[in-house]
Amino acid sequence: MENPIPDYLGDILDSVRDDSSGEIPTYIPELAQADPEWLGLALCTTSGHLYSAGDDDVEFTIQSLSKPFAYALAIESAGMDAVVDAVGLEPSGEAFNELSLGEDGRPVNAMINAGAITVNQLINGPDSGVDERVEMIRDYFSRLAGRELEIDEKSAESELAGADRNLSLAHMLRSYDIITDSAQDAVLSYIRQCSVKVTVKDLAVMAGTLANGGVHPRSGEKLVDARVARLTLSVMNSSGMYDAAGRWQARVGIPAKSGVSGGIIGTLPSQLGIAALSPRLDGSGNSVRGVKAFEELSDQMGLHLMNGVGMSGSETVRTIEHRGGDSVVVLQGPVDFSAAEAALHAISGRKLTGERVVLDLERVTHTQPMGIAMLGEGLRRLREGGREIASHDPRGFLLDNELDDGTLVPDVMDLDA
Amino acid sequence: MENPIPDYLGDILDSVRDDSSGEIPTYIPELAQADPEWLGLALCTTSGHLYSAGDDDVEFTIQSLSKPFAYALAIESAGMDAVVDAVGLEPSGEAFNELSLGEDGRPVNAMINAGAITVNQLINGPDSGVDERVEMIRDYFSRLAGRELEIDEKSAESELAGADRNLSLAHMLRSYDIITDSAQDAVLSYIRQCSVKVTVKDLAVMAGTLANGGVHPRSGEKLVDARVARLTLSVMNSSGMYDAAGRWQARVGIPAKSGVSGGIIGTLPSQLGIAALSPRLDGSGNSVRGVKAFEELSDQMGLHLMNGVGMSGSETVRTIEHRGGDSVVVLQGPVDFSAAEAALHAISGRKLTGERVVLDLERVTHTQPMGIAMLGEGLRRLREGGREIASHDPRGFLLDNELDDGTLVPDVMDLDA
Amino acid sequence: MENPIPDYLGDILDSVRDDSSGEIPTYIPELAQADPEWLGLALCTTSGHLYSAGDDDVEFTIQSLSKPFAYALAIESAGMDAVVDAVGLEPSGEAFNELSLGEDGRPVNAMINAGAITVNQLINGPDSGVDERVEMIRDYFSRLAGRELEIDEKSAESELAGADRNLSLAHMLRSYDIITDSAQDAVLSYIRQCSVKVTVKDLAVMAGTLANGGVHPRSGEKLVDARVARLTLSVMNSSGMYDAAGRWQARVGIPAKSGVSGGIIGTLPSQLGIAALSPRLDGSGNSVRGVKAFEELSDQMGLHLMNGVGMSGSETVRTIEHRGGDSVVVLQGPVDFSAAEAALHAISGRKLTGERVVLDLERVTHTQPMGIAMLGEGLRRLREGGREIASHDPRGFLLDNELDDGTLVPDVMDLDA
Amino acid sequence: MENPIPDYLGDILDSVRDDSSGEIPTYIPELAQADPEWLGLALCTTSGHLYSAGDDDVEFTIQSLSKPFAYALAIESAGMDAVVDAVGLEPSGEAFNELSLGEDGRPVNAMINAGAITVNQLINGPDSGVDERVEMIRDYFSRLAGRELEIDEKSAESELAGADRNLSLAHMLRSYDIITDSAQDAVLSYIRQCSVKVTVKDLAVMAGTLANGGVHPRSGEKLVDARVARLTLSVMNSSGMYDAAGRWQARVGIPAKSGVSGGIIGTLPSQLGIAALSPRLDGSGNSVRGVKAFEELSDQMGLHLMNGVGMSGSETVRTIEHRGGDSVVVLQGPVDFSAAEAALHAISGRKLTGERVVLDLERVTHTQPMGIAMLGEGLRRLREGGREIASHDPRGFLLDNELDDGTLVPDVMDLDA
Repeated sequence: MENPIPDYLGDILDSVRDDSSGEIPTYIPELAQADPEWLGLALCTTSGHLYSAGDDDVEFTIQSLSKPFAYALAIESAGMDAVVDAVGLEPSGEAFNELSLGEDGRPVNAMINAGAITVNQLINGPDSGVDERVEMIRDYFSRLAGRELEIDEKSAESELAGADRNLSLAHMLRSYDIITDSAQDAVLSYIRQCSVKVTVKDLAVMAGTLANGGVHPRSGEKLVDARVARLTLSVMNSSGMYDAAGRWQARVGIPAKSGVSGGIIGTLPSQLGIAALSPRLDGSGNSVRGVKAFEELSDQMGLHLMNGVGMSGSETVRTIEHRGGDSVVVLQGPVDFSAAEAALHAISGRKLTGERVVLDLERVTHTQPMGIAMLGEGLRRLREGGREIASHDPRGFLLDNELDDGTLVPDVMDLDA
Repeated sequence: MENPIPDYLGDILDSVRDDSSGEIPTYIPELAQADPEWLGLALCTTSGHLYSAGDDDVEFTIQSLSKPFAYALAIESAGMDAVVDAVGLEPSGEAFNELSLGEDGRPVNAMINAGAITVNQLINGPDSGVDERVEMIRDYFSRLAGRELEIDEKSAESELAGADRNLSLAHMLRSYDIITDSAQDAVLSYIRQCSVKVTVKDLAVMAGTLANGGVHPRSGEKLVDARVARLTLSVMNSSGMYDAAGRWQARVGIPAKSGVSGGIIGTLPSQLGIAALSPRLDGSGNSVRGVKAFEELSDQMGLHLMNGVGMSGSETVRTIEHRGGDSVVVLQGPVDFSAAEAALHAISGRKLTGERVVLDLERVTHTQPMGIAMLGEGLRRLREGGREIASHDPRGFLLDNELDDGTLVPDVMDLDA
Repeated sequence: MENPIPDYLGDILDSVRDDSSGEIPTYIPELAQADPEWLGLALCTTSGHLYSAGDDDVEFTIQSLSKPFAYALAIESAGMDAVVDAVGLEPSGEAFNELSLGEDGRPVNAMINAGAITVNQLINGPDSGVDERVEMIRDYFSRLAGRELEIDEKSAESELAGADRNLSLAHMLRSYDIITDSAQDAVLSYIRQCSVKVTVKDLAVMAGTLANGGVHPRSGEKLVDARVARLTLSVMNSSGMYDAAGRWQARVGIPAKSGVSGGIIGTLPSQLGIAALSPRLDGSGNSVRGVKAFEELSDQMGLHLMNGVGMSGSETVRTIEHRGGDSVVVLQGPVDFSAAEAALHAISGRKLTGERVVLDLERVTHTQPMGIAMLGEGLRRLREGGREIASHDPRGFLLDNELDDGTLVPDVMDLDA
Repeated sequence: MENPIPDYLGDILDSVRDDSSGEIPTYIPELAQADPEWLGLALCTTSGHLYSAGDDDVEFTIQSLSKPFAYALAIESAGMDAVVDAVGLEPSGEAFNELSLGEDGRPVNAMINAGAITVNQLINGPDSGVDERVEMIRDYFSRLAGRELEIDEKSAESELAGADRNLSLAHMLRSYDIITDSAQDAVLSYIRQCSVKVTVKDLAVMAGTLANGGVHPRSGEKLVDARVARLTLSVMNSSGMYDAAGRWQARVGIPAKSGVSGGIIGTLPSQLGIAALSPRLDGSGNSVRGVKAFEELSDQMGLHLMNGVGMSGSETVRTIEHRGGDSVVVLQGPVDFSAAEAALHAISGRKLTGERVVLDLERVTHTQPMGIAMLGEGLRRLREGGREIASHDPRGFLLDNELDDGTLVPDVMDLDA
């Protein structure tokens, strides 16, 4: 069977294809050479499945879509405290060329240019040369995308020539001692970051990595700390779509970031990374057809951060079986608070008749510390209540997890089916 | 075994108990009589499990925590268009007593008082008397809580006497023709809405209903349209925590609303409703210990909207079994886009050797239309590829779902285990 | 000879008469009954000459033109400190219905409604009844106009019925403890202040009193302290014309205040009070033809605060004559710093050949303390230099003015012409 | 007799001398070398008398005090329309380093840096080299001061090195197509304008020229068009003192401009130019002791724009005498609207018994067109009423002034005393 999902994506593209409104921005000469008809869409699940449709192999410069990834890299490079000290977390409610800082003298967030130039400077340390910093960024983006990405140096050069807004920002940031590089270098470094060439497929995978708690959905490589990925998505959600953040959150409900080359990326935490391309922009600087495609994705596919009918923890407990003298509690999937709650609820609410209660974690995919702690506490209480306990935990999720009384849960290697 | 979750909640309360900073507001005489030491916490899962700790039976007036629920009721009562036309969707970034309207002449969102007074007026139509409107609200809140709630009329009366800010807002709204009731009536109606008496347990259940797509997690009654619940949560997320919306989203990551009586409610869509009570407020008008308790919940329990390690769709496919000549694909849990994607991916990626492919939906709990459509399309393509298809669908999820070619999927009543 | 000035005023009215743009505001029913064709202009010099043209006997409600006069009365009534503490001095740059206070929590100035309601409350003390306060205002305005003015109680009543904006302001001011009267009383008191009936001739005389340092230009009665008049004009200049203060100052250059009934008053300190009436208003709430008339007055008649070719002090010294053994220095007009400087310059720069130097102050009209002190110091130095000194000072300007050495200047009753 | 006015100025300096609060700014290295104890004051009357005290010969860089004079020069150079189109007229209410433009996309006024850089670019045309432009400015400032001024090129150089704020502004202005020079050139040109070296005596004379309607008070040379001087003073008044414009206007009442080198200039139209120097600045960037000295000048000397006890027109009519068959009306001083009004009032109100009415203009010092037109109209009406008319007008004020009926007033060469 051919998977119909690419066809669904194609249908979405078809439904927005005829909208020829909007304009390609002319202030960056290289951008003006984009084909206004380009139209592409890609989607990468956290389980690593990548789907795409339309112009999914067209390379274009990443522009502002680089901001969340550079933000994550800056935190990895300079530490979370340094980054949060330098750049705020509040939505700006302002247009993308706004020059002002927040009342506390910092760029209000990392998704506007003032914040993004500051973030760029935090990568590879204050003494880094421009070339080293840009190479570090290019390499990181490449690992996120899963292939070697290149910088469009010609585009960077042409953008630099008309970079008065960014130079204005950089001089302002210097005047407040927020950055120390020369304005020219700071803008050059930022513009080259923006000139990395990507496809919608690259972007969907990159966004999927953020959705997957920082783990690359295809290679399984850990590229972003889970807390950093979480913070990055929070900032995208509150500040990524410029001056219509509230409406976007209500209408589309997918944390997103748009860029001047016509790209939009979105993420649904734990589910998906998404990317669209269509170069004509609306008055807010967002891709006209890209916005519409996201609206369709949200509407038709029910992709919305606030959807209440998703997975709850209740599917964690696959079954409770009695085998020999054991009551075997079989868990599956990731074990977070909700999942552990469901397990505890099942255990505490049912009569477990076996002499021994065995927790079968063989089918568990990920764990969060709290989920493991909760399971451990449940086992401890069972034992306190006079039951023998054990686990079947071939991947060792409970291995380092002493119970509150300092003992470990004995593990059972083989469980009869 | 005694479920340890109430103990966890108690631990969180203990960790914040000693913070005696903040003040009980004095401008509402009845509020000043709250016991500053009250401290309670409750949590309701979307599967209906309710846990609580501390002062979980103390009744207090709901105050601004009424705003999201009244917003949902107004949409049910007046229609989404009328409500979205009257009140904006953008975060205010402003203090809770701010008088100004947005540039478009509307209250900027429904979580500030100007918006909430406007929303209140949309309930039960413009010609409704105050008593009828308030009774409609009290009744709706009671159904959300699952018990009959009462209005603290004495508190309402005392609040009305010092209601200059709200009267100022109501006169302003009248001057812009946004409301038509007399200012006195509009404020009376709003203040009585704010005077419904609740406990943290009530609030956790009410919030849990929003988290559960509008379905009451304990009774299963459908109280809020799923789209309305989603919109309500979006607005809470972008605007519920006054002037620190961005930091709250990044730090806590739980869509929330706070109130002047010291309550805070939070929701994690598809997972939980949460409520805390502690009457002393910080300078922003939020409960000091309530905020801390939410920070702990987020930190310790990993409850954060942007967490990437949650349930993805990959747990949907329980197994693919071969029984007789059938390949039986067993799905479980809710079937949304992600779940259906996982199923399609499994089907299209594997060699199904049986003559007939049977989709077993017996363990499916909820469905979204897109998820069902995707499964249907997968079956259609299998048949197109020469396979016989069938479903085992005792709850009838596929019943109304014609395939693209107008046929229905034949159902198999009994499947051999 | 018939004075041509009324004809000049008539010419100005003719030049703006045909502009029928603008609208009579409808939110105050009584205002809507004004004749849109009314067109009047009056001008009162500080020497008391009153000229007028057009509908100069039409009575209309004073509305916001009452603000500067009530401001002056509030300072007389409550003291300058109390008034300046309660209401700021900064231009608002905002529309006339703006609800917000300044960052310091006070109304930004006394020319916007929030400030004017606050100012009204400062008249006759916080315990004053509305009737007593309003009578005090009516009486004061009558003395400024030089005739008994009446309140249009019917207009006040009709305005009160639709006074949501002002009621909103009053409730807000109460919520900040800026006023203590009930909102209803505060607005009633303010609206009745606004309902005093005046003509453009009344207003020109009232404005002329402010221009004349608080001395009624016709009766000579001292009605406003000079410092209060000065402060009032400063506030009119920076804040009187709503959101176009800078352009008005540059283009027209006459400190002014406009009102919703179509009146505009202006003053040129030491020179003139001006008033215009034409009921149709522009989008900023200013009388369309009134604004044009002021532009013409400024352009054609050279009436502009920043005009450099006006009276300097150099005309003070009428002559220096030698009579008998005296050198008689004849001064004329008002003696302020500039005038005294001119006198001192003349005395110190010339060879005074007489044995005695006599300062003839018979033609001096007003004095400021510094001007008198400077003249005294000049005389003292002349005596120190060996000259005999005396004054001819029938009005006693020097009477209380001891020289620095404690002596008085001997006075000469008769001077030979 | 020694003129006591320098002593008065010295007294003012003494009264503020001991205030050692405030700081010398360090961001411009050359400024940091100023002696913090410098304290100087100078005053120049429109009649050309120059008084000074303290460090009145210390040269310092003019900095922002250059803004009003460059504004006047830009209008002379590019025309009023071009300048008013490029830069707004509204007070900013904002600090001196504010980066934002007004809502119309223009710098809000010419007294903030964004406006001043724009104004500088309008001098000598868009194609002017920096050197030519700066020389034009230096030459103009020299003529205003009445001596050759020099540029402190070393200071300019040191300022350029730390000019991030101004470079930020220049890039922003370029990005909005408000200026076309390179950012580097625009800032260099502006900084060199700011580096002209002046003393308080120079500045008092320069400000005196603006006060005198553009006529140099000492040389009598016409350097600024009267309308341009008027506009420049209006802008200084509404926007010269940064964020306290309203309080300054109320408290001091002298249109003023302050600069970072510790200077403040002030003007009272038709009366005075004033300049103070004291390098330590307050938090708003204004000279601490300079501000105090201006407050003293306003308080003690009664120098306030809104003072009502100044010269009114009533001193114009020196006398009406009967000589031979003539009624001779002797006028003196400048003849503006107010003066002409006084003359017309005198003529029309009195019984002139002579056969002929002669207007004696020998003592008139200046005239405004409206004043002359009014006198002419008065004469015409007298003749129309049957009187013979004539003038004694040795300076020819009436020469080009045809009466409304096309005739000229016959002139009488000699008048018997």
